[in-house]
Amino acid sequence: MIIVLKSGASDEEVAAVCRRIEAMGYRPHTIRGEVKTVIGAVGDDRGKERLRSLESVECVESVTPILQPFKLASREVKRESTVVPIGKVSVGGERLVVMAGPCSVESRDQVLEVAARVKAAGAAVLRGGAFKPRTSPYSFQGLEEEGLKYLAEARRETGLPVVTEVMEPDKVDIVAEHSDVLQIGARNIQNFSLLRRVAETRKPVLLKRGMSTTIQEWLLSAEYVLAGGNPHVILCERGIRTFEQSTRFTLDLNALPVVKKLTHLPIVVDPSHGTGHWEYVEPMAMAAVAAGADGLIIEVHPRPEEALSDGPQSLKPERFARLMARIRKVAEAVDRRL
Amino acid sequence: MIIVLKSGASDEEVAAVCRRIEAMGYRPHTIRGEVKTVIGAVGDDRGKERLRSLESVECVESVTPILQPFKLASREVKRESTVVPIGKVSVGGERLVVMAGPCSVESRDQVLEVAARVKAAGAAVLRGGAFKPRTSPYSFQGLEEEGLKYLAEARRETGLPVVTEVMEPDKVDIVAEHSDVLQIGARNIQNFSLLRRVAETRKPVLLKRGMSTTIQEWLLSAEYVLAGGNPHVILCERGIRTFEQSTRFTLDLNALPVVKKLTHLPIVVDPSHGTGHWEYVEPMAMAAVAAGADGLIIEVHPRPEEALSDGPQSLKPERFARLMARIRKVAEAVDRRL
Amino acid sequence: MIIVLKSGASDEEVAAVCRRIEAMGYRPHTIRGEVKTVIGAVGDDRGKERLRSLESVECVESVTPILQPFKLASREVKRESTVVPIGKVSVGGERLVVMAGPCSVESRDQVLEVAARVKAAGAAVLRGGAFKPRTSPYSFQGLEEEGLKYLAEARRETGLPVVTEVMEPDKVDIVAEHSDVLQIGARNIQNFSLLRRVAETRKPVLLKRGMSTTIQEWLLSAEYVLAGGNPHVILCERGIRTFEQSTRFTLDLNALPVVKKLTHLPIVVDPSHGTGHWEYVEPMAMAAVAAGADGLIIEVHPRPEEALSDGPQSLKPERFARLMARIRKVAEAVDRRL
Amino acid sequence: MIIVLKSGASDEEVAAVCRRIEAMGYRPHTIRGEVKTVIGAVGDDRGKERLRSLESVECVESVTPILQPFKLASREVKRESTVVPIGKVSVGGERLVVMAGPCSVESRDQVLEVAARVKAAGAAVLRGGAFKPRTSPYSFQGLEEEGLKYLAEARRETGLPVVTEVMEPDKVDIVAEHSDVLQIGARNIQNFSLLRRVAETRKPVLLKRGMSTTIQEWLLSAEYVLAGGNPHVILCERGIRTFEQSTRFTLDLNALPVVKKLTHLPIVVDPSHGTGHWEYVEPMAMAAVAAGADGLIIEVHPRPEEALSDGPQSLKPERFARLMARIRKVAEAVDRRL
Repeated sequence: MIIVLKSGASDEEVAAVCRRIEAMGYRPHTIRGEVKTVIGAVGDDRGKERLRSLESVECVESVTPILQPFKLASREVKRESTVVPIGKVSVGGERLVVMAGPCSVESRDQVLEVAARVKAAGAAVLRGGAFKPRTSPYSFQGLEEEGLKYLAEARRETGLPVVTEVMEPDKVDIVAEHSDVLQIGARNIQNFSLLRRVAETRKPVLLKRGMSTTIQEWLLSAEYVLAGGNPHVILCERGIRTFEQSTRFTLDLNALPVVKKLTHLPIVVDPSHGTGHWEYVEPMAMAAVAAGADGLIIEVHPRPEEALSDGPQSLKPERFARLMARIRKVAEAVDRRL
Repeated sequence: MIIVLKSGASDEEVAAVCRRIEAMGYRPHTIRGEVKTVIGAVGDDRGKERLRSLESVECVESVTPILQPFKLASREVKRESTVVPIGKVSVGGERLVVMAGPCSVESRDQVLEVAARVKAAGAAVLRGGAFKPRTSPYSFQGLEEEGLKYLAEARRETGLPVVTEVMEPDKVDIVAEHSDVLQIGARNIQNFSLLRRVAETRKPVLLKRGMSTTIQEWLLSAEYVLAGGNPHVILCERGIRTFEQSTRFTLDLNALPVVKKLTHLPIVVDPSHGTGHWEYVEPMAMAAVAAGADGLIIEVHPRPEEALSDGPQSLKPERFARLMARIRKVAEAVDRRL
Repeated sequence: MIIVLKSGASDEEVAAVCRRIEAMGYRPHTIRGEVKTVIGAVGDDRGKERLRSLESVECVESVTPILQPFKLASREVKRESTVVPIGKVSVGGERLVVMAGPCSVESRDQVLEVAARVKAAGAAVLRGGAFKPRTSPYSFQGLEEEGLKYLAEARRETGLPVVTEVMEPDKVDIVAEHSDVLQIGARNIQNFSLLRRVAETRKPVLLKRGMSTTIQEWLLSAEYVLAGGNPHVILCERGIRTFEQSTRFTLDLNALPVVKKLTHLPIVVDPSHGTGHWEYVEPMAMAAVAAGADGLIIEVHPRPEEALSDGPQSLKPERFARLMARIRKVAEAVDRRL
Repeated sequence: MIIVLKSGASDEEVAAVCRRIEAMGYRPHTIRGEVKTVIGAVGDDRGKERLRSLESVECVESVTPILQPFKLASREVKRESTVVPIGKVSVGGERLVVMAGPCSVESRDQVLEVAARVKAAGAAVLRGGAFKPRTSPYSFQGLEEEGLKYLAEARRETGLPVVTEVMEPDKVDIVAEHSDVLQIGARNIQNFSLLRRVAETRKPVLLKRGMSTTIQEWLLSAEYVLAGGNPHVILCERGIRTFEQSTRFTLDLNALPVVKKLTHLPIVVDPSHGTGHWEYVEPMAMAAVAAGADGLIIEVHPRPEEALSDGPQSLKPERFARLMARIRKVAEAVDRRL
């Protein structure tokens, strides 16, 4: 931690802050600048956050951490990239993994039809929501357990592993039973009880970034899962909230190189939620691959104009197939395979 | 809903969209402008959201709702302001309600000391966190059940009702047992399972705005509680996330007149979390009162420099007492009482 | 400056960075933490920004400044608050200064009528735009020189000093001739040529914060004027751009205590542009006064529904008069006068 | 324009609004919904913005435009994509155009060295700043006219056309004399005097998006240049300001498909300013190409650690050459050439 004192801090004030630092178990190193005095607090990193309370001391201007607050997620702790296995599929290796399917599971026919179509186009994982977090209580809330069964049936028919969202601790077991990857949605990125609970399952977790979550906070949420004993975390960038309203969210592809630098965890990109418009899904999917994404998650619906949720951002199966062909070329250009 | 067609949409395309609107049970009204055609869809408001899927039709440029999506929370449905009773205290009436106490319950002594001090200064409700949502898994996570008991003891000693946060559906009952107001934190504003569960208790709910929640989304979260049969919702503005980093969040006081216009629910303001710095709490608390807040929620700690969480934004008891005196004057200037 | 090295930086790398720091004329102080090494660079503050280029050295993780980059604007350099005189009016003293008038000068009659009305209600300065920065080239661009003359006439008739915007260096002289305060609009906050040019006039400058300008950048723009030899700078908070769209901008009242802490310059608030809706002007004006603003700038138009610009956010004169009565009470509650 | 009335608006109020619309020269079309009444105002698009003033009428809830406010920039007006010629180079055709060079022109040797290196690597245009907009008055402000001469010399030596920034109307002529493309920087995107002045030169204009400019506002700034008679506008995405601080700005690649849909103008991307870190330039440059950019503008400096500005985000020449090789592959994958 770097503690900056206000200009004009007296010798006694500096000494008093140093004593507080020592009382908390750290060694103070004082640098007297021409205007301000700066104190570095050296010592065991755990618990260093408590030093932040020094900001409430009158002569202290600011307290700034030097180390990243996440540990297990950090590439400084584990240099080689993590590969998360989902059955026979691996996320984080040379091969890109495309997850595709409807926003919501709406019926048995719908999910079986989409599953067959996306598999034919080259998708490796089936996505689909049975439990749906909806902003309005009056919106379609998902088929719940019934939806899980249709997903499981589609998995048996196609062999595709399934990723689906879980929204509350009590449902983790049943969702885990019918699926291969537990998705934590953007709105639950700081639902710490849920994070602890999915950690216990040891199943792969797809951790969507919250719409206003900094990358540091996102990796701290991953840290909850890792610290809970589950190393199988896949990050998913899905757009952040900014002033620009011509897209539903601002898909933040800058997160790709930042995340790759800070952590060893794999990262996939969701251009469907990230942009909210089907016309923008293709260019942003291709950009994501060029920027180093380990995979994509894309909404596909046979009749988007009748979808019960997120129709505007869903691709028709034939358009998805064309996109896959284009993605393949970009993947090769960056030495990846589809 | 207003459906705008792309310029150049043919008569057949217009007719086809009208047929789809009718098939969904609405009456289309077409306005042909000099460049674009606009279709209004008239009919029962429930389920109108499904019309949004028309955005995936090629000739449709955009689909825009006319009505606010929340109903029970709307001032159009209920014109008179709601007053939420917390024991003998009322939130939303002429009298301002100040809730104060430590960020975290850290010990029995701490909470009893603070409770006595804030009561003496004029606070009407005691706040304090037993379950703490912490960004890092390595931070102090609260005393949990033990903390609830200390809060209940402070309530008995001082007579102050207690507001405390609940973070997961399974804990709602025990938190409800030991407290008077259930707080939903900013990170759980779209934890819909939790919202449904607190609705069942019929206890007052303090609903903090999420850090990137629009006012519309916030009122839709309130709608979950109201639609669940619990009319006792108190909104709490606590700062949004913006580009400006000189405050921890940007306390959005504009939300006060907007909320007062849109909904009948009372609203309080949290200048402690909203700014993140004790030096800014006083001016923003006063501004909140001048702008029409129904109350405040303020962090007070006897020794902020030793606090286990949020020390930098906590007031010492004597500073809190001075603030109360200043707030009293501003309250009178806007025809409220403390 | 604090230079943080990547973990694993070798002794030679540390030494090499220290040599570079010395070559730039600073003294390096090294603190070896348990994980990372931190180097403080001590020395003359001017030119320290060049140290930032060290970020491009492979072993360097980040370079963080300790001192605020503005000097003349800093309260550390000048502790007593600055009072800016505008004729007989003073901004920054005990008395609040309310500036009011139409968004655009539209006609001689309009500006004379408004000037008389706002004076009668207690405004101390007349505002009005002759040169208008308009987002669209097809919008009304102002009466330009003709408008300046009407403003000057209104000044003669009422005795109110005039504040009006100047948009380009070549117009500074003519605007200065017909007005008392030169307004730099939000869109020109980083138009450095213009800032240098208004500094030369030695006239009071009303410096509006840009819609995405951090407080630090804003004070650096003030520094351009101060460093150009003009000490008469009045800051004006007018709303920042955030994700929230229920107000046109997010009026950031948090800026008031932050600015008061960092600088000695006075600050006024513009709730008209800040919210964009006349219904929100009153509560936000009152909040600004309670939070410590030195004044307000408010749009008043006799017939807002016919205004050529910003009708939605303009108050009618009678509403403005009522607002002034309410502001007076809040001002007294915070020991100010109107 | 769509005018939405508040619920409960009386027949007389509806009629009064219709009369006002007619008085402004538009035909009102009324749609009575089950809750609210909506009025469409049909007629000549020019001047429609005045209808916005209806928002100040008590019974009006909102006024929403249907048409995009820009005309000449719109793809609805001109369907085929514009190609902007810069000497023998064309921006907007099949061939990608890479512009490269130092942030600031620092010396004759520096600019000649960089020009030769970037040309050898395949850049088609030389960039370099002679006039520098600097946030602090104490930062290096550019070599000004002297810098222009070095750029002109580098142009003669290498044959590369030159793009450089112009910051004020009075300097437009001299900058136009020594360069091939006039750059309008992010801070001047709404400096309308400057936009009008560069329009007069008829030279290609590189129009950088402001850091908080919506895409609609950006295209309205382009409209100023087009309406001034200069059709040669190249848009440049360079990052927007968001809450995320791990990059200097958030490079918004979503703007690429949005811009391609709305306008016929070409667009290039600046990953150097967009991210602020040299390590992120390569992945974001590749992503930009995959998403459909017509070109890139990249900062290259022989010794970034000694740069007088923006060292942290500058590439060394050898790294730039490697990047060009990678970009070539991605370009081919999306059917473009370098």
